[in-house]
Amino acid sequence: MHASYDVIVVGAGHAGCEAAHAAATMGSRVLLITMNMQTIAQMSCNPAMGGVAKGQIVREVDALGGMSGIISDKSMIQFRMLNRSKGPAMWSPRCQSDRNMFAWEWRKTLESNTNIDFWQDMVNEVLVKDNRIVGVKTGLGVEFTAKSVVLTNGTFLNGRMFIGEKVFGGGRTAERSATGLTEQLTQLGFEAGRMKTGTPPRVDGRSLNYDLMEEQLGDEKPGKFSYTSTPALTTQRSCWITYTNQDVHDELKTGFEKSPMFTGRIKGLGPRYCPSIEDKINRFADKDRHQIFVEPEGWDTVEVYVNGFSTSLPETVQYDALRKIPGFENVRMFRPGYAVEYDYFPPTQLKPTLETRLVQNLFFAGQINGTTGYEEAACQGLMAGINAHRNAHEEAEFTIKRSEGYIGVLIDDLITKGTEEPYRMFTSRAEYRTLLRQDNADIRLTEKGYAIGLASQDRYDSMVAKRTEVATLTEAIRKVKLKPEDINDWLETKGSSPLREKSSLYTLLKRPEIEQEDVISLFSQIPDLPGVGEESLEQTVIEIKYEDYLSREKQNAEKLDKWENLSINPAFDYDQLKALSFEGKEKLKRLRPSTIGQASRISGVSPSDVSILLVYMGR
Amino acid sequence: MHASYDVIVVGAGHAGCEAAHAAATMGSRVLLITMNMQTIAQMSCNPAMGGVAKGQIVREVDALGGMSGIISDKSMIQFRMLNRSKGPAMWSPRCQSDRNMFAWEWRKTLESNTNIDFWQDMVNEVLVKDNRIVGVKTGLGVEFTAKSVVLTNGTFLNGRMFIGEKVFGGGRTAERSATGLTEQLTQLGFEAGRMKTGTPPRVDGRSLNYDLMEEQLGDEKPGKFSYTSTPALTTQRSCWITYTNQDVHDELKTGFEKSPMFTGRIKGLGPRYCPSIEDKINRFADKDRHQIFVEPEGWDTVEVYVNGFSTSLPETVQYDALRKIPGFENVRMFRPGYAVEYDYFPPTQLKPTLETRLVQNLFFAGQINGTTGYEEAACQGLMAGINAHRNAHEEAEFTIKRSEGYIGVLIDDLITKGTEEPYRMFTSRAEYRTLLRQDNADIRLTEKGYAIGLASQDRYDSMVAKRTEVATLTEAIRKVKLKPEDINDWLETKGSSPLREKSSLYTLLKRPEIEQEDVISLFSQIPDLPGVGEESLEQTVIEIKYEDYLSREKQNAEKLDKWENLSINPAFDYDQLKALSFEGKEKLKRLRPSTIGQASRISGVSPSDVSILLVYMGR
Repeated sequence: MHASYDVIVVGAGHAGCEAAHAAATMGSRVLLITMNMQTIAQMSCNPAMGGVAKGQIVREVDALGGMSGIISDKSMIQFRMLNRSKGPAMWSPRCQSDRNMFAWEWRKTLESNTNIDFWQDMVNEVLVKDNRIVGVKTGLGVEFTAKSVVLTNGTFLNGRMFIGEKVFGGGRTAERSATGLTEQLTQLGFEAGRMKTGTPPRVDGRSLNYDLMEEQLGDEKPGKFSYTSTPALTTQRSCWITYTNQDVHDELKTGFEKSPMFTGRIKGLGPRYCPSIEDKINRFADKDRHQIFVEPEGWDTVEVYVNGFSTSLPETVQYDALRKIPGFENVRMFRPGYAVEYDYFPPTQLKPTLETRLVQNLFFAGQINGTTGYEEAACQGLMAGINAHRNAHEEAEFTIKRSEGYIGVLIDDLITKGTEEPYRMFTSRAEYRTLLRQDNADIRLTEKGYAIGLASQDRYDSMVAKRTEVATLTEAIRKVKLKPEDINDWLETKGSSPLREKSSLYTLLKRPEIEQEDVISLFSQIPDLPGVGEESLEQTVIEIKYEDYLSREKQNAEKLDKWENLSINPAFDYDQLKALSFEGKEKLKRLRPSTIGQASRISGVSPSDVSILLVYMGR
Repeated sequence: MHASYDVIVVGAGHAGCEAAHAAATMGSRVLLITMNMQTIAQMSCNPAMGGVAKGQIVREVDALGGMSGIISDKSMIQFRMLNRSKGPAMWSPRCQSDRNMFAWEWRKTLESNTNIDFWQDMVNEVLVKDNRIVGVKTGLGVEFTAKSVVLTNGTFLNGRMFIGEKVFGGGRTAERSATGLTEQLTQLGFEAGRMKTGTPPRVDGRSLNYDLMEEQLGDEKPGKFSYTSTPALTTQRSCWITYTNQDVHDELKTGFEKSPMFTGRIKGLGPRYCPSIEDKINRFADKDRHQIFVEPEGWDTVEVYVNGFSTSLPETVQYDALRKIPGFENVRMFRPGYAVEYDYFPPTQLKPTLETRLVQNLFFAGQINGTTGYEEAACQGLMAGINAHRNAHEEAEFTIKRSEGYIGVLIDDLITKGTEEPYRMFTSRAEYRTLLRQDNADIRLTEKGYAIGLASQDRYDSMVAKRTEVATLTEAIRKVKLKPEDINDWLETKGSSPLREKSSLYTLLKRPEIEQEDVISLFSQIPDLPGVGEESLEQTVIEIKYEDYLSREKQNAEKLDKWENLSINPAFDYDQLKALSFEGKEKLKRLRPSTIGQASRISGVSPSDVSILLVYMGR
């Protein structure tokens, strides 16, 4: 009765939206099913995108042709490049978002894609035939057929919300949970678990005394996420920083006996790196204060997000404790924080494409895989959407290597190691993070996105133009020889030692005291350098300054790539390798990696264990 | 622990928003409690404001200082003055709204009022002491105290949604119902009942063939609702008209055996004048088609509202039937229509201020009183908010007479006659509808709104300026004498008979063939008339053209007003009045009106019955 689709996407959060957009853009007929069309792309937690490692992911999603970057750019109210004082691998774009605009921009984007249909309903059954997905069935009893299905259920599967001793069914504040699906997937043979996350109270910005807080302005020259021509901000809204104190902690402790976390009523593990305030007090008893980051919810609302104060303590305790924070003396709450517990499916049940091993053409993306974070969800949605499309059209799988992007790191971590607590991305998770920078995501990935029909011709052309500019500029820089008399005065102003003889600009750039921001001033001393775009200039300098390091990293990555797919017999007898470490041997015997790459990433398997394996295998 | 308030408003729909805004603007500290801050002022049904009689109500709300008019103006995408070909009493402004903008404009308005606090939670108990309200208690267990409380629960009280044989708890699509409150109010002695309403499917505008429909453009010169200086539209979106046919009806009939309406699973009565499509087919079996009005949901969405096709038949039946409507052959649905059944409290339990008779300072407004319609809800919210504020500050009650406004008619109808099906306003419900026009709501009501501190000084000044302009222009028109030679040519072009002698402009204006739109052209023939605003001009002409009729109506209204409050002894022995009609006597004995005014409005009590009563009482 209803049309048949190439791809059905269940859920319209960050993962679902990217999945639907990607598959549809590549040519699939897509049905996006959401429980509420009014809450498409609702930011459930804080009104912000990006941050350390996460900002790089948004850039990668953008480079491949996803939309999170463009939509973040269109809805941002503040932009900051984090870690600018550190090396370029650490530079991380982050923005504050207008919560409403973000959601609406996504909805407009999806609506403007003629390949996407919408259906508002709850999916409570996947239709499977001969271990292959054939469609879904909804709460209204409607059956939709499709060649591929992507599940992005977020925190909705059997979601239960906790505030002190109160428990409600629900996937997000004021929204129902989704039922039935976990039970059916379990019957099909999937293993399911419970996870937990939480959110802080929302408060009335009019009731805060910002004079007692520290203002955090956006960057003087705000950047953006997308490599496309989205405009940068011209005005910005500030955030504010304040701190808890011993009084706040004492007040919070009065609620600990009613805490759903501490009394064991919540079984699921929460995100270690985004803990509730009660967790922080408990785990870091020696810290006498914790930072509170006060984030506006949009351009024209008084609602404020109290980042750092996630809690599921009783509402009265939240309120009394908040009022002891400097600047919050007269705070009025809009609603308390809460914890939400939900079902996830350990992601070791997935292939590198995010397709499930059990059911062909069924994909999982986002929190259902045990991750946390908008960006982590978005990039999984993108990859699942791409592969759902490609499976539907019997095309080869599309993956990204660990050396090519954080997206590759994330998915490889998930499917080989699994996760027992909500998985969040960090730069430290990437072996070659110096290669996976925010400035070169386009150079790394746009060609791949273009090849599969996702990144547009415009994007591809821009990337090629940038690559050409970088090459041209690098070439020109190599040729420039500077005379001491021309440059020594300038060098002195930068505290850099003078040249004794004619020397190349190329070498000079490598001096660590010549910083990125000095380069424009330096280049203005030198005639005949070709004019290039800002991004090309930035990238050229990074590539020259860190040339040796980067090329070593590239070699290492290539070496690893060679090993990556070297198979290990699943029945391999690790006991015969006496030299293996005790822990390494135990883990290898238990997890039985199918490649050297996977073996190398098992925590407890040391680089020397890997060497031993390689030696045994004759490498 | 939480602050104490003057007024707590429960629910943030049309009624709750107006109530909160009114009380806060007049100086009350207000707490607005909503189950979801993201759905403040959500239009649950069609994306439109105004219409016949309803548009007049919006104008009245605006004249008193309410916000529905301004917000409608800011969020409209099309404006039409309905019934322009009829007399000015029938002129009714109506707009199509951008659903999102409407909600967001309301939220911004409420947030910008420093007297309004917000709390997201479900109220499931009112706190009563000595028959007086003292506060509310929420699902989270929070108690808030207040001097007055306004309940505007809409369709949420024990809301149950029906689609074919499927039943869900819920107050609106994808939103939970509210529980506990009805049960508690019933324990306090309130009588409760069930009502039903419904909504049509939402569909994808991209899937419709508008070539097969009739376009309905907005007015060439779009008007607006507010008497303030909100700008009128410069571009508009069109609506589209199509019709059902026998095929559609036959398809729908296949679902009748699963209809929750026809199988008795829905007990509550639905709105007679806004029936479901299955109701229409059933009740008007001789009609072979029904109009379908296709309304866009906003400026930049493809979502479309299928007005006229409200239904709770099974989803498959809805879909198959829709596809037989011209233009809908390839329709894609976003979600099916549904019926919702909810608790209401028969409004005969209320005072003219909308305060309950049982519990002092507790007010009910909107669908909880058995009404239907955004405008009906908004004006009740406004009146309840005003009186909640005035009760909280021990000020006299504020009411509007039937002769002063539709608002007066609506509330008087509700509290004296009650309603057994969702009450909707019609011009025919007003005895003096010629007095209650959309053009003079400011003249009728702004002074009253200003006196109580709700309408701003600006509003008041504008109204006075308009009143002065009307008086000045009327005076000037009275003085103008026209010579035949100056005006006869013009009269001829209008098909109006020539003047034989010098004649007054005043008299000429009364000619029925000289229509409103001719006046500007007529006046341009005449030097020395003062220039006035468009609204003043319109009103002057109406007042002159209909002078005799209007003044007769005013006299009648004044006469009725005199009787209005003439008391009847509740123990009066109607049997002694042999001349009373049989039906009139029965109704009077049963309902025992407390005034002549109330007696006169009981259906079945004829004007002659009223005369008999008056004669008996010596009038």
